[in-house]
Amino acid sequence: MGVKEECAVFGIWNHPEASQMTYLGLYAMQHRGQESAGIVTMEDKKHHHYKGLGLVGDVFSESVLASLKGNAAIGHVRYSTTGQNLLANAQPLTAELYKGPIALAHNGNIVNYEEIKRELSFSGAIFQATSDTEILLHLISKKNHNHFIEALKESLLVLDGAFSFVLLTQKKLVALRDPHGFRPLSLGKKDDAYVVASESCAFDLIGAEFVRDILPGEIVWFDEDGMHSEIYATKNHLSQCVFEHVYFARPDSKVFGRSVYESRKNLGKFLAKESRVEADIVIPVPDSGVPAAIGFAQESGVPFEFGIIRNHYVGRTFIQPSQSVRDFGVKIKLNPQSEVLKGKRVVVIDDSLVRGTTSKKIINLIRQAGAKEVHMRIASPPTISPCYYGVDTPQKSQLIAAKYDLKTIEEFIGADSLTYLTMDGLFKAMHSDGKDFCAACFNEKYPTKI
Amino acid sequence: MGVKEECAVFGIWNHPEASQMTYLGLYAMQHRGQESAGIVTMEDKKHHHYKGLGLVGDVFSESVLASLKGNAAIGHVRYSTTGQNLLANAQPLTAELYKGPIALAHNGNIVNYEEIKRELSFSGAIFQATSDTEILLHLISKKNHNHFIEALKESLLVLDGAFSFVLLTQKKLVALRDPHGFRPLSLGKKDDAYVVASESCAFDLIGAEFVRDILPGEIVWFDEDGMHSEIYATKNHLSQCVFEHVYFARPDSKVFGRSVYESRKNLGKFLAKESRVEADIVIPVPDSGVPAAIGFAQESGVPFEFGIIRNHYVGRTFIQPSQSVRDFGVKIKLNPQSEVLKGKRVVVIDDSLVRGTTSKKIINLIRQAGAKEVHMRIASPPTISPCYYGVDTPQKSQLIAAKYDLKTIEEFIGADSLTYLTMDGLFKAMHSDGKDFCAACFNEKYPTKI
Amino acid sequence: MGVKEECAVFGIWNHPEASQMTYLGLYAMQHRGQESAGIVTMEDKKHHHYKGLGLVGDVFSESVLASLKGNAAIGHVRYSTTGQNLLANAQPLTAELYKGPIALAHNGNIVNYEEIKRELSFSGAIFQATSDTEILLHLISKKNHNHFIEALKESLLVLDGAFSFVLLTQKKLVALRDPHGFRPLSLGKKDDAYVVASESCAFDLIGAEFVRDILPGEIVWFDEDGMHSEIYATKNHLSQCVFEHVYFARPDSKVFGRSVYESRKNLGKFLAKESRVEADIVIPVPDSGVPAAIGFAQESGVPFEFGIIRNHYVGRTFIQPSQSVRDFGVKIKLNPQSEVLKGKRVVVIDDSLVRGTTSKKIINLIRQAGAKEVHMRIASPPTISPCYYGVDTPQKSQLIAAKYDLKTIEEFIGADSLTYLTMDGLFKAMHSDGKDFCAACFNEKYPTKI
Amino acid sequence: MGVKEECAVFGIWNHPEASQMTYLGLYAMQHRGQESAGIVTMEDKKHHHYKGLGLVGDVFSESVLASLKGNAAIGHVRYSTTGQNLLANAQPLTAELYKGPIALAHNGNIVNYEEIKRELSFSGAIFQATSDTEILLHLISKKNHNHFIEALKESLLVLDGAFSFVLLTQKKLVALRDPHGFRPLSLGKKDDAYVVASESCAFDLIGAEFVRDILPGEIVWFDEDGMHSEIYATKNHLSQCVFEHVYFARPDSKVFGRSVYESRKNLGKFLAKESRVEADIVIPVPDSGVPAAIGFAQESGVPFEFGIIRNHYVGRTFIQPSQSVRDFGVKIKLNPQSEVLKGKRVVVIDDSLVRGTTSKKIINLIRQAGAKEVHMRIASPPTISPCYYGVDTPQKSQLIAAKYDLKTIEEFIGADSLTYLTMDGLFKAMHSDGKDFCAACFNEKYPTKI
Repeated sequence: MGVKEECAVFGIWNHPEASQMTYLGLYAMQHRGQESAGIVTMEDKKHHHYKGLGLVGDVFSESVLASLKGNAAIGHVRYSTTGQNLLANAQPLTAELYKGPIALAHNGNIVNYEEIKRELSFSGAIFQATSDTEILLHLISKKNHNHFIEALKESLLVLDGAFSFVLLTQKKLVALRDPHGFRPLSLGKKDDAYVVASESCAFDLIGAEFVRDILPGEIVWFDEDGMHSEIYATKNHLSQCVFEHVYFARPDSKVFGRSVYESRKNLGKFLAKESRVEADIVIPVPDSGVPAAIGFAQESGVPFEFGIIRNHYVGRTFIQPSQSVRDFGVKIKLNPQSEVLKGKRVVVIDDSLVRGTTSKKIINLIRQAGAKEVHMRIASPPTISPCYYGVDTPQKSQLIAAKYDLKTIEEFIGADSLTYLTMDGLFKAMHSDGKDFCAACFNEKYPTKI
Repeated sequence: MGVKEECAVFGIWNHPEASQMTYLGLYAMQHRGQESAGIVTMEDKKHHHYKGLGLVGDVFSESVLASLKGNAAIGHVRYSTTGQNLLANAQPLTAELYKGPIALAHNGNIVNYEEIKRELSFSGAIFQATSDTEILLHLISKKNHNHFIEALKESLLVLDGAFSFVLLTQKKLVALRDPHGFRPLSLGKKDDAYVVASESCAFDLIGAEFVRDILPGEIVWFDEDGMHSEIYATKNHLSQCVFEHVYFARPDSKVFGRSVYESRKNLGKFLAKESRVEADIVIPVPDSGVPAAIGFAQESGVPFEFGIIRNHYVGRTFIQPSQSVRDFGVKIKLNPQSEVLKGKRVVVIDDSLVRGTTSKKIINLIRQAGAKEVHMRIASPPTISPCYYGVDTPQKSQLIAAKYDLKTIEEFIGADSLTYLTMDGLFKAMHSDGKDFCAACFNEKYPTKI
Repeated sequence: MGVKEECAVFGIWNHPEASQMTYLGLYAMQHRGQESAGIVTMEDKKHHHYKGLGLVGDVFSESVLASLKGNAAIGHVRYSTTGQNLLANAQPLTAELYKGPIALAHNGNIVNYEEIKRELSFSGAIFQATSDTEILLHLISKKNHNHFIEALKESLLVLDGAFSFVLLTQKKLVALRDPHGFRPLSLGKKDDAYVVASESCAFDLIGAEFVRDILPGEIVWFDEDGMHSEIYATKNHLSQCVFEHVYFARPDSKVFGRSVYESRKNLGKFLAKESRVEADIVIPVPDSGVPAAIGFAQESGVPFEFGIIRNHYVGRTFIQPSQSVRDFGVKIKLNPQSEVLKGKRVVVIDDSLVRGTTSKKIINLIRQAGAKEVHMRIASPPTISPCYYGVDTPQKSQLIAAKYDLKTIEEFIGADSLTYLTMDGLFKAMHSDGKDFCAACFNEKYPTKI
Repeated sequence: MGVKEECAVFGIWNHPEASQMTYLGLYAMQHRGQESAGIVTMEDKKHHHYKGLGLVGDVFSESVLASLKGNAAIGHVRYSTTGQNLLANAQPLTAELYKGPIALAHNGNIVNYEEIKRELSFSGAIFQATSDTEILLHLISKKNHNHFIEALKESLLVLDGAFSFVLLTQKKLVALRDPHGFRPLSLGKKDDAYVVASESCAFDLIGAEFVRDILPGEIVWFDEDGMHSEIYATKNHLSQCVFEHVYFARPDSKVFGRSVYESRKNLGKFLAKESRVEADIVIPVPDSGVPAAIGFAQESGVPFEFGIIRNHYVGRTFIQPSQSVRDFGVKIKLNPQSEVLKGKRVVVIDDSLVRGTTSKKIINLIRQAGAKEVHMRIASPPTISPCYYGVDTPQKSQLIAAKYDLKTIEEFIGADSLTYLTMDGLFKAMHSDGKDFCAACFNEKYPTKI
């Protein structure tokens, strides 16, 4: 809650319905980006492409999909920050290089982008979009043209930050992750076709089999000779984004080698161990708090209930009445039910607490519904620092835990008690010693220079 | 699953933002109808109206809402069967009578509609739409014009079947239920305004207070003198639709005087009592099976898990690949997770079982995900007969339980075991002796001539 | 200029592509109505229909046309006055009567409509739209059901005013004109198919042959036995709308038995005879003034020039700058060229002069372009009275000639001289003694009670 | 006919409603391009931009125009050849250079574009669109960054071909023409604002005053110090496109210092002098043949008539019936009237004759309408060679005059006689010795290497 997802990428090689499969793969990963969607296909060394603003199901019509011919394709869904020029920033980015067409889809954020852009720009490069992704195309274009993979590998070494890339050239489909492995990227197989996707739930939908994760610092490519792989950079420090497990990824995905649902249930279990409370029921803030609440209930023995019902028909926009309806913005999505809550001591579980304003409203609604006590339990540590690796977090000044102590936050949100999961609990729940994860949003330990 | 919702009505009297409140009320009841939405307002004895195909949030723009002036309004969302002339059937219906404009919104189905229409038509009435609702306008129009409420009451006595109506005239807003009380209709209050709605969740969103249900056979109207009420027909037999509690209504609504969530949990509890099974986990078919699964888990002690994840970004349409992806239609919405299911003995809970085809696919997916055993438990009795009271059920020939015995169905869907709730369990779960509910879809006892 | 067109009707019987032919017929008559378009077809006693707001080419897609199956069809384009409920007023109107579906398209205006509607309404009829057309459906529906043509003929006798109707029932296509023959309606033939249309230009486009006009007071119908015709009312007084020739109809149409282009050229010739002036060039206000200007030039010997160029890309709307551009509203459409006008004594020809405001702006622009003298010549008499027979004219108070004398108007519009055609010249140009035309807008002699 | 227009550019400096004025300027020049429209404005060194497919009036809404803030703007309308990626090729092109944003609008065609692109591409430039225009941005970007005008001038010297450019930088608006002066570009003034436009009709609409043409090889720029001008290239050979006067430009524009209407009338007069014929009437193929037909009629004394009526409501698309309607494609736009043509010896005037197929259909329709003789007169010489300077002409193999002699063409189109204007007549009508015009489409003398 309060943190926004940031893109998914997809690629498929050697499938007769490459664009349709990409469409479905993006459909399955729609939760990672709802602002724009795009697909580029390769047919006889030529590219076809289509991008649009909105949900995958709205952007692509049957006739558009049919026009995206070819048996290789890449796709992208994007959550983009506001800005006038949304469509120009939609991905995959496409360009014509000396050696032919290229298309590129990116999940992550390049930290040293401004600096590289300034240099490129000084030497005559011109830029179309305001995103960081475009610089890779320029870097590649400036290298030796005869060995694309070499040019790409050299270019990657200049980049610092988080990037899972999928590229399509005249002859190849390439997939790679940065040496830190910030963002997920998995490899699958469907009959004779290879598939790559940000999350394994995309494989499930198209009936592909999960093979393995693309490794941090690994570059994988597919061409007429099949699949190739190389480690283009030795990992200095593995820094997988822990927030993927806390909030981003779909619970039915396997990310960084483990089930997201299991991670979340575990976060709830450790939360229950760390901060027991006398209560009658445990309820989640749906949908993201559900697995943690189930874990909390199982560990604590307090009964699990759906005390807040979510309206899943809420569209992208709705029209607010000018006369104030109290807590309207939350109520349009979430409705606490008094029949469940009345007279009860309630534990309410959320995945994270960012600004605190939504929690305050939810707790208020739970109290109005008649709860006797409201105990807020957050299935992650206090969020104290912004992300620079592809997650759209508020500035530090808007992170309530960066400014106030626990007691003050508890009072602000109006809870009878508030506890967060500890860093220790977080990593234990992930079966980790903490060294293979980036948890900078919780502990301010950024794995790269910022 | 397999049964479609059928309309919601809303009305508000004496509120400065009547159209906006109606918009929100319909928004909250979107689950009852997604094909069309409409609002009619009353300003100075004149009506403004707007209808369109699609979701409430798509049909109404800010400027359209602003043009719907006046402090009384009625609204409607519709699930309509397919047909060319969708917009003509959208509601509220509007017409110009001798005494002025009238608008009408209907939830239910008039059983003797064909016969009445034939008579009206023979005497010169002309019809615009193919729905049953239009006949009421004609009946009223043929009565004495000086007493609208009298004309309405007389007209209602001709009708047989299920109807919760909301009407708007030049001076009044009227709300009423048929004498059997098939469909719900509740009365609320928001400051000085009166509100009526099919479900109480609409009150929650706009911050109105639930007052009581409109009674079966009761007609309530609002005019410049305030609220009035009369019983226009003595109830022959109370026949509230039990399926509202089993499947239709939102779990956070109060319907027929009781919490839907509690009913569903109870159905799950009685189901557990009736058909215990050795198992490792209980999982719901989301979203409709969730409360029953929680009840089942609480009663049985078997742990509750979200073994199937629902993709809530699935739009109204998606494009299927021509090459078959097995069980695609189910997978686009539901994804069973192997991490939860692998090696487990699974109880899967659904609200009802209509055709059996979806259950078959779900069970197949659960098995593919590695479940050792799959026990299907249905939180209602076998559906054996179609509904004639406003629910879009398949014909009898397509109801699997109307044709096959339990064993055959069990084999067809591929479950290790299948049990339904008994009729006795159904009514007990509802704290009822069965006399106040219509359960014709389960027991073929139709409360009216068909 | 300043007067708006009012609808066209079309019908075709016994053609395998009835909806496509109707689409093209409406396309050709688009100048008679741009607000909405609709088509109803008949297939096996069932109707298919589609209506929409906008131009014919925008309302109908290929798939919509393909869905309008059957070998009989009627269609309508409408210019409607503003109003909230535009789509409800779009035609053909459709309804279900006791004997089956009916569809109706109307060009004209029923003068005694309010009175008939009040009676129908009092006896229980309910109305959908605010147009006058709907009453015919009610009148028919109340008659004996076994003889549709008889019921229709009886109903027509109640109506007063202007009406060219095209109807489609379960088995028949009917076309008829009122006894005064206010509005045109012609009969054509294309191979084995019969066609009716408001203007003969519709026949030209689909390659049909003009046969004859439907007669005033004649009803023509087509069924499985072929074509039938009857005179249902003896004409009291033939009153063909002279404005059809002055402005409405396309110049390439034959209307009331004569070429519109020839009429307009003749109007220009008689205008030249009546009001000669020393001048260097004659220019039309395009497009409607062109034929009259050619006639004027031929008669007077003054050279014809296109001194004002019309921008044909002007759409339905454009955005005006907030800072005033002088005479902007006229300039967006019409651009006088100084190369042609500079230093010249200019005669400018327009078809009619209604409010005078547009003429004032045009003359101003012509002077700015350098004309030495500007002589306005109007190819019709002063417009002094509104039309009640289907033409959207301003109220009398806005007709400049109803309030001011010639000299005052001349000064208002800023012309060096202004003359109108005389009534005598008008009728002579039409080769008429004036008895067979309605010219009430020019002479206030209304052929019916108002 | 058969030749398509190719773009218009517009720019305005120092006007409080720069985007609105640009909108109107493009509106007036819509005839030069209907595929896409775009506007870029400059506000405080930042750019706002918006582009879309379709007509100016459809692309820009009031809110979009309002968002395009700033008091300098450039705009473009485009006729683009078909292709998947229409929007990417829409102009103005925009990019971010080292020194800030730049926008560019182009009318013309760069002949040596492929060669320059290959070089740029080899040195690392990446391309977004498939148009020729983008190379200028790259060329500029590679130059010294401190003197934009110098960098631009150097870049222009590399280009060969036809180009009227309008550019917008962070601080300047620039307008320039190639040294041959192929395409028009004029300078105007509106109060304190400077305006540039492809045609002077744009000035008329916004109330700006025509000042002079931008000279061939001249670069003009506007900044906070006002207007500046330089000749950046000495003209080798003035080669103004004669086809602008024959067909492209609006008749009410002044192009290359002379009235287009007067040129066309003169073409008609010289045509009459060169190829007299006994005839009863002269008719134009509307709209483009009208001025020449007036000139022909004045010179020959044969009466001018509108024998073919054009339907101005024809939209971008219409749906053709599957059953053939003879000559349908022409008839949807043009309807010859038998009342005018019957029994007549007809001279029909068209501006040019490219493929011959349309003329064939028109002549056929004129004969069907009853003409006794049909004499085709073309107000320009035979079109024998394609244009490489920004006009979309068919390939040589499709130019009927490139392959067949006059007699054969006459027979093909079915005329009783056919004559073209001579080259001598063409230039005389333009008051030219032929040295200042490019007439390569008529005489194959290309002013540049191809």
